[in-house]
Amino acid sequence: MSPSPARITAVDTYDIRFPTSRELDGSDAMNPDPDYSAAYVVLRTDAADGAEGHGFAFTIGRGNDVQVAAIDALRGHVVGRSVDELCADPGSLSRDLVGDSQLRWLGPEKGVMHMAIGAVVNAGWDLAARRAGKPLWRLLADADPAWLVGQVDFRYLTDALTPKEALELLRRGREGAAERAAALRARGYPAYTTSPGWLGYSDEKLTRLAAEAVAGGFRQIKLKVGADLADDVRRCRVARAAVGPDIRIAIDANQRWDVDEAITWTNALAEFGPYWIEEPTSPDDILGHAAVRRAVAPVKVATGEHAQNRVVFKQLLQAGSVDIVQIDAARVGGVNENLAILLLAAKFGVPVCPHAGGVGLCELVQHLSMFDFVALSGTTDDRVIEYVDHLHDHFAEPVVIRDGHYTAPTAPGFSAAMRPGSVAEFTYPGGTFWAADRARRDIDNGKGQVACRK
Amino acid sequence: MSPSPARITAVDTYDIRFPTSRELDGSDAMNPDPDYSAAYVVLRTDAADGAEGHGFAFTIGRGNDVQVAAIDALRGHVVGRSVDELCADPGSLSRDLVGDSQLRWLGPEKGVMHMAIGAVVNAGWDLAARRAGKPLWRLLADADPAWLVGQVDFRYLTDALTPKEALELLRRGREGAAERAAALRARGYPAYTTSPGWLGYSDEKLTRLAAEAVAGGFRQIKLKVGADLADDVRRCRVARAAVGPDIRIAIDANQRWDVDEAITWTNALAEFGPYWIEEPTSPDDILGHAAVRRAVAPVKVATGEHAQNRVVFKQLLQAGSVDIVQIDAARVGGVNENLAILLLAAKFGVPVCPHAGGVGLCELVQHLSMFDFVALSGTTDDRVIEYVDHLHDHFAEPVVIRDGHYTAPTAPGFSAAMRPGSVAEFTYPGGTFWAADRARRDIDNGKGQVACRK
Repeated sequence: MSPSPARITAVDTYDIRFPTSRELDGSDAMNPDPDYSAAYVVLRTDAADGAEGHGFAFTIGRGNDVQVAAIDALRGHVVGRSVDELCADPGSLSRDLVGDSQLRWLGPEKGVMHMAIGAVVNAGWDLAARRAGKPLWRLLADADPAWLVGQVDFRYLTDALTPKEALELLRRGREGAAERAAALRARGYPAYTTSPGWLGYSDEKLTRLAAEAVAGGFRQIKLKVGADLADDVRRCRVARAAVGPDIRIAIDANQRWDVDEAITWTNALAEFGPYWIEEPTSPDDILGHAAVRRAVAPVKVATGEHAQNRVVFKQLLQAGSVDIVQIDAARVGGVNENLAILLLAAKFGVPVCPHAGGVGLCELVQHLSMFDFVALSGTTDDRVIEYVDHLHDHFAEPVVIRDGHYTAPTAPGFSAAMRPGSVAEFTYPGGTFWAADRARRDIDNGKGQVACRK
Repeated sequence: MSPSPARITAVDTYDIRFPTSRELDGSDAMNPDPDYSAAYVVLRTDAADGAEGHGFAFTIGRGNDVQVAAIDALRGHVVGRSVDELCADPGSLSRDLVGDSQLRWLGPEKGVMHMAIGAVVNAGWDLAARRAGKPLWRLLADADPAWLVGQVDFRYLTDALTPKEALELLRRGREGAAERAAALRARGYPAYTTSPGWLGYSDEKLTRLAAEAVAGGFRQIKLKVGADLADDVRRCRVARAAVGPDIRIAIDANQRWDVDEAITWTNALAEFGPYWIEEPTSPDDILGHAAVRRAVAPVKVATGEHAQNRVVFKQLLQAGSVDIVQIDAARVGGVNENLAILLLAAKFGVPVCPHAGGVGLCELVQHLSMFDFVALSGTTDDRVIEYVDHLHDHFAEPVVIRDGHYTAPTAPGFSAAMRPGSVAEFTYPGGTFWAADRARRDIDNGKGQVACRK
């Protein structure tokens, strides 16, 4: 009797939270005190090789439990699936999750439920890439264009992009792919860094980190703006003085402004030559971004980290709202939907500069940009992946930055697996860090005896 | 010593599910088997009068637990609040919930987390209206225009509507309000009914229910379309024959189509004189709706039940995407955000015809339309509230339909309270209905003994 085919046997979820708010890492005009967190999911299998798939949604603290509950709600669609069938067609998982008509009501295709789908779909791709023995970027770049088209949900897209056009883009993208893959392995993919620019940092820290960024090979940095105009003027001046005239400085308002305010504020910072203004207003405001873009040129407009799905990206492109498309690996419905967004950007000729940082977003999104370079857009001109130097040590295969570039991953998978020690330490509320933290607080509050007696 | 002021002491949540899928009630082209459900919340207080506030998010089954988890995540913002302060300014609750920067990441202002906020905010308004001794529509219609403006979050709206313009609209809306309130009490607010039009119904049932609707005083019915064009042609013909030429027939595709398909399909049904086409495509597709509207006139375009927040409604109006704004009482962030949407619609001169049905949506949304009539738009011309005759018996103060009109509620509150017996019966999975249902299924599956032995 032949052994029964391998199945997914469990969907294990973890509420992982890091106490980042205590250092003001990640502070911006809308998010003063984030605790970077991940609703982490592992697909377990009974495959002989012990294969697993890892994925996560990124959150900034409170509500990470809601995100975990949403992933848990998908379990019934996942457990029992054939591993081989999933790996041969990750789109089958995506379609079943997006297509659950009852769960769809909770979006549709947006917010908590859609991020949960993205986490599980990404875990499916991690599993597929591991079993293929390739990093995800290479699995995608090597894939047959027709198969890739089959991975995309074109619903609501066909007025802007048809499957036939997508196939043509992917076929053209394959020309010269081998040479570009070699160049990628040799040089990596250009990065920019947000590490100097958090709102909570002093001018001295900003200056030091900005100079370090340039010395480290970065050609672009990013500053958070939008809380106080006089502060922003000063910080932009400090940053420009630190990096000189040739380094690009992007500015990021994290959705802080209304349309008119975005225009006034951005123009007030124009003298410092910002390269792009990011998230000037609501991520839902397609027409608002278009109005801002018309009024602040030549400063470019960038958005997308909070754009909920491909339908919003489609319209941002149709309306001429953006100069830069910022995909996020863990906001939309996973790799399949990001393929759709990369194809839309290619169709409209708009460069993709991914959002990253947070927990593991750098690890994931590098694969998508590298695929885009090797086998779709074919260029890194005016393209950079965000880099923030937080929390990489918690991942089994952390990103490697060399001379301002992301090094191409070589390990099989999507780089999504967290270190077991980090999971044990930062699981909330039961992990060792949080348990010790509660004990410390109880002692500080004079409750030490009570806590010990429990 | 004077007694300490009344506080909110608990936020109790309930996962309520009704087995509606077994009758095909509510079946449409995207939602073939909904189990209408409510993530129900009760704000308990220690007020001497025992005051409570009731609210809910509506879902269609799976995932209702995720919605409950999201409401639970808000508890920390609610428990301990002063009842008097909340009732004097429900916007303070809305601002604190929407403004939680960590929870905001899970949207922002969309999907599961935003519907949870809506449920809690609506419960706050229910409490406020009960304590004021007025039905919510009257509390709003009697309120000082400046106070109402203070209830609205204008963030991301000011390029389309300023607080000053809103104040002007509300001041003008008050002229003649007493006369309109009297007319409302005498005659009610016009309704239309979707009860005949579910996809799962036979032609005979459609004919019978359509004729009953007309006999019952309704001047508009609605048919679900979008699954099969030949079927839709036949069903529209049957419906038109049943109601005659003078009754409006709306058609509703529940987001089934891409833009081009929406245009083709709607035009193929034009011979039956549909009044509006509802949700022709993705609720996120502002530009798509505008394209459809241009191509299907004189058929009107209606959408909004899944529009996630005021920013999307703003753009639907700015882009000329809709002839009809369909608010939903439990999709956006509660009464405060619906005030913003009503004001936007008034500014652009577009009629509001609310989405209802589901669980308790009729009970809630009638209050918003009645306020709109009495103290904002000042008219019911071309305005109708959806009515579906499902599940009203589970509410303590169910809607009353008389001669095709919603009767103006007189009981204090937002009509959101469910009957305790219904809560006990349909709480999932522990309520008496679901427990008995499991026992029945176990017996059918030959597991009766096992189930009994537990």
